[in-house]
Amino acid sequence: MLATLIHAPRDIRVETVPDPVLSTGGDAIVKVVASCVCGSDLWPYRGVTPTREPHRIGHEFVGVVEAIGDRVERIRVGDFVIAPFYVCDNTCINCRNGFSTSCLHGGWWGSDDRLGGFADGGQGERIRVPLADGTLVPVREEITDDLVPGLLTLSDVMGTGHHAAVSAGVAPGDSVAVVGDGAVGLCAIIAARRLGATTIIAMSRHPDRQALAREFGATHIVAERGDVGITAVRELTHGIGADRALECVGTKESMDQALRSARPGGMVGFVGVPNGGPELPLRRMFDTNVGVRGGVAPVRGYIDELLPDVLSGAIQPGRVFDLELPLRDAAAAYAAMDERRAIKVLLRP
Amino acid sequence: MLATLIHAPRDIRVETVPDPVLSTGGDAIVKVVASCVCGSDLWPYRGVTPTREPHRIGHEFVGVVEAIGDRVERIRVGDFVIAPFYVCDNTCINCRNGFSTSCLHGGWWGSDDRLGGFADGGQGERIRVPLADGTLVPVREEITDDLVPGLLTLSDVMGTGHHAAVSAGVAPGDSVAVVGDGAVGLCAIIAARRLGATTIIAMSRHPDRQALAREFGATHIVAERGDVGITAVRELTHGIGADRALECVGTKESMDQALRSARPGGMVGFVGVPNGGPELPLRRMFDTNVGVRGGVAPVRGYIDELLPDVLSGAIQPGRVFDLELPLRDAAAAYAAMDERRAIKVLLRP
Repeated sequence: MLATLIHAPRDIRVETVPDPVLSTGGDAIVKVVASCVCGSDLWPYRGVTPTREPHRIGHEFVGVVEAIGDRVERIRVGDFVIAPFYVCDNTCINCRNGFSTSCLHGGWWGSDDRLGGFADGGQGERIRVPLADGTLVPVREEITDDLVPGLLTLSDVMGTGHHAAVSAGVAPGDSVAVVGDGAVGLCAIIAARRLGATTIIAMSRHPDRQALAREFGATHIVAERGDVGITAVRELTHGIGADRALECVGTKESMDQALRSARPGGMVGFVGVPNGGPELPLRRMFDTNVGVRGGVAPVRGYIDELLPDVLSGAIQPGRVFDLELPLRDAAAAYAAMDERRAIKVLLRP
Repeated sequence: MLATLIHAPRDIRVETVPDPVLSTGGDAIVKVVASCVCGSDLWPYRGVTPTREPHRIGHEFVGVVEAIGDRVERIRVGDFVIAPFYVCDNTCINCRNGFSTSCLHGGWWGSDDRLGGFADGGQGERIRVPLADGTLVPVREEITDDLVPGLLTLSDVMGTGHHAAVSAGVAPGDSVAVVGDGAVGLCAIIAARRLGATTIIAMSRHPDRQALAREFGATHIVAERGDVGITAVRELTHGIGADRALECVGTKESMDQALRSARPGGMVGFVGVPNGGPELPLRRMFDTNVGVRGGVAPVRGYIDELLPDVLSGAIQPGRVFDLELPLRDAAAAYAAMDERRAIKVLLRP
């Protein structure tokens, strides 16, 4: 089959690799219907994180189950399934606590793990899914083609934007500042509106993304950054800052922007993968009582909650895909996102 | 009148100073019934923070109102009052949000401020209280002498321990690890139990404090620190860590202990004044979804909630005072706390 590998910075290749095979009795083989490129895939692409040897890449996909191990009970051959960006059993204590990203038995796509050998990265034709009963969410409604992008966002970006909002405790009537206008930031706007926020400030400098932010529910746009941006946010929020700030980038500058955009006693929900591991200024947090909560998003548990709204069209996160390419053009997909010609690229095998 | 001044590290003197006078129309003069020494007062005492010139010290007191300005409406002459460790109007948007420590018009005891001149630090005979209507909480029940220590803890330590628990989101059935066995840590145990925690782990190395921790509601004691302490906490919490960790010290080591004692998706509530401003490891927080919230405790708003339980004896935070001295012996009070011969010292003018 075909799968995407990264060989080195800016060297993405679609190559022929062995088909996956069942190995544990609890796994499934899924034929990919759609996958996509994540903002975090750009880190090795840009050389920010090292690529020591060629390896598979990708971690978001939806597809149809082709085969299951003999111990699989919930998932059936022929199911259309959504996969979160990680593997989990959905039964351990961390999963039950709502933090399946810390599953005691789970793992990550694209790695050799304890779960019966290699599991592919998502940007390919087929995938072996360990812990299929825990990991996969079947969607047994009729799946029309126009639903696929929205369902695919439940694999990562929509659930991740939702996690930013949930971590910050967004509640009806809140004011919310969203830092970052990538696919996750835009989904965070959807999530904030869905949870009842009435003032939603999108911090964005790109006209096309500003327009989508407004369609998703942003009530205000702040294009400035730094002190000027903070002042603009405060002017929209009684002079004190937003009740909640959602950090959807992962840099020191974006976290600083989020911390300073929140009012005394406010909360920062953060989901940007910390790029280079910036540390948080505890004294400032102490003085202002601004809290920080978030991290790698336990999207598996959010799929059940968000799926009905995607199926009904009440939310339309699939619109973050503004470019669709065949899998064989994966390298072009990376380049388009790297050069900001696309917000997020959907790949079809 | 007499008041306590710090001249230099380990140089505490009780001196004659001018009596305070009303100056704003909104202020009150309070005759102190009891005050006390705070753990944070030990920082300048120990030279951890500099003392550039002699100044008044202290910030916790209860007393009786002797005089009021002509614009004071809620507070009456003769009222027994509890003062939080700061001044606030209790009406601005930050106060209404529950964060009166960020009052737009408030200030701190012992400083020249915008509120009509100097306001004393608490360890003295009389105090001018700016914004008396917002700051002071009258207690119009009969005040017997044995109630005074408990009421005095509402000025700071009991409300601060409560803030750690509230910031961490302690809820019925939770497991809670408390880092720090000073007065605030002990009050955090009271708060955690009051909010329904069923497993309360006190991290304490001192037998007398361990005993009080158990009386206050601790179900387990962990005397070890570092990796051994973390392992002990996990053994008591399904192997994953506590739902909530309350950081009541303020050092890099204690914050690290709290962060690592919390389970994936757990929360750290912190109230230890950050000593030297340690920074938080964002990447670790991201990977584990452990959030951090807390800071300078808005105790003014907590007094109403906690006061009935103190008056009824349902909680007995006054027991953290294990030494009582006359005001003139303030220097001995500091020495006793510095040398850990006392948990917290009550001073009576």
